Amino acid sequence: MHTVREKQKLLARVRRMKGQVEAIERALENEAGCGPVLHLIAGVRGAMAGLMAEVVEDHVRSHLVDSAAHPGALQEEAVEQLLDVVRSYLK
Amino acid sequence: MHTVREKQKLLARVRRMKGQVEAIERALENEAGCGPVLHLIAGVRGAMAGLMAEVVEDHVRSHLVDSAAHPGALQEEAVEQLLDVVRSYLK
Amino acid sequence: MHTVREKQKLLARVRRMKGQVEAIERALENEAGCGPVLHLIAGVRGAMAGLMAEVVEDHVRSHLVDSAAHPGALQEEAVEQLLDVVRSYLK
Amino acid sequence: MHTVREKQKLLARVRRMKGQVEAIERALENEAGCGPVLHLIAGVRGAMAGLMAEVVEDHVRSHLVDSAAHPGALQEEAVEQLLDVVRSYLK
Repeated sequence: MHTVREKQKLLARVRRMKGQVEAIERALENEAGCGPVLHLIAGVRGAMAGLMAEVVEDHVRSHLVDSAAHPGALQEEAVEQLLDVVRSYLK
Repeated sequence: MHTVREKQKLLARVRRMKGQVEAIERALENEAGCGPVLHLIAGVRGAMAGLMAEVVEDHVRSHLVDSAAHPGALQEEAVEQLLDVVRSYLK
Repeated sequence: MHTVREKQKLLARVRRMKGQVEAIERALENEAGCGPVLHLIAGVRGAMAGLMAEVVEDHVRSHLVDSAAHPGALQEEAVEQLLDVVRSYLK
Repeated sequence: MHTVREKQKLLARVRRMKGQVEAIERALENEAGCGPVLHLIAGVRGAMAGLMAEVVEDHVRSHLVDSAAHPGALQEEAVEQLLDVVRSYLK
């Protein structure tokens, strides 16, 4: 998204997730049992929730306020309260 | 929270939810089957998610920026994108 | 539900939950900030998920198979795999 | 999993999901805004939940009871109540 470093971090997460989806594909092709397949799916779900939480955090910190035009307008304590809720729902 | 009207709306929701929890209590006391009890629990869960979404929305709109000190700093489009995500997770 | 002991355990959970909903009501009446209210709501949500998981577990163990008519028909390992998924979603 | 037809249906879902994850990757590479990225992530999350619900349903219907050894032991009404809960949580 916003900085080269953040973008690389998010891309690494997404590529790891693609590998996890491919592992589900292989498990199904190889007739793995339900237990292993359910665990693999739960893993992708967790990874997806983590990615969502990270993009939401970037979004809140970078886009809710144009910080060039309104420096210091975003209230850090309120942001933290919001992100606490987001993280507790996205795990 | 923020305005008398919002507070009354939130209180009405919470009181309705208390009634729903009492209905679960009665169902258990009366040895209702699992099916009805599971439906009642799902109902409270939905109500709770709706309350959470409403408080989060109030919080984002009222507290992320001190609008007296920084009028117009909160970017409406970015707020809507954030609340879309919150609502889709809290239903 | 099924046994007197399970019923008492579930009822104790539901009554605790009613107390938590009343705490949200008082917080709103007393104009508590969003942060505390969001925490209280998250607490009820967690309690609700725990109750749901417990009722689902009772349901799976007691009702999916009529164990008087079909003793030993329920496969314990498959039940555990199912309940693992249920618990991981309901926390 | 269990039948060739079910396996093909699940595989088709997983491959669609891989395409969705690749769309997130491309969106990040192309510096798409948060809004589109959040929508794409929400899409994968929904697809994942649907896949999970389907595997859970297969698991409940095929593995909780060995139907060759205990024909008719699985109580259809109780299964439906369980799957209603699972689906309502996995959407």
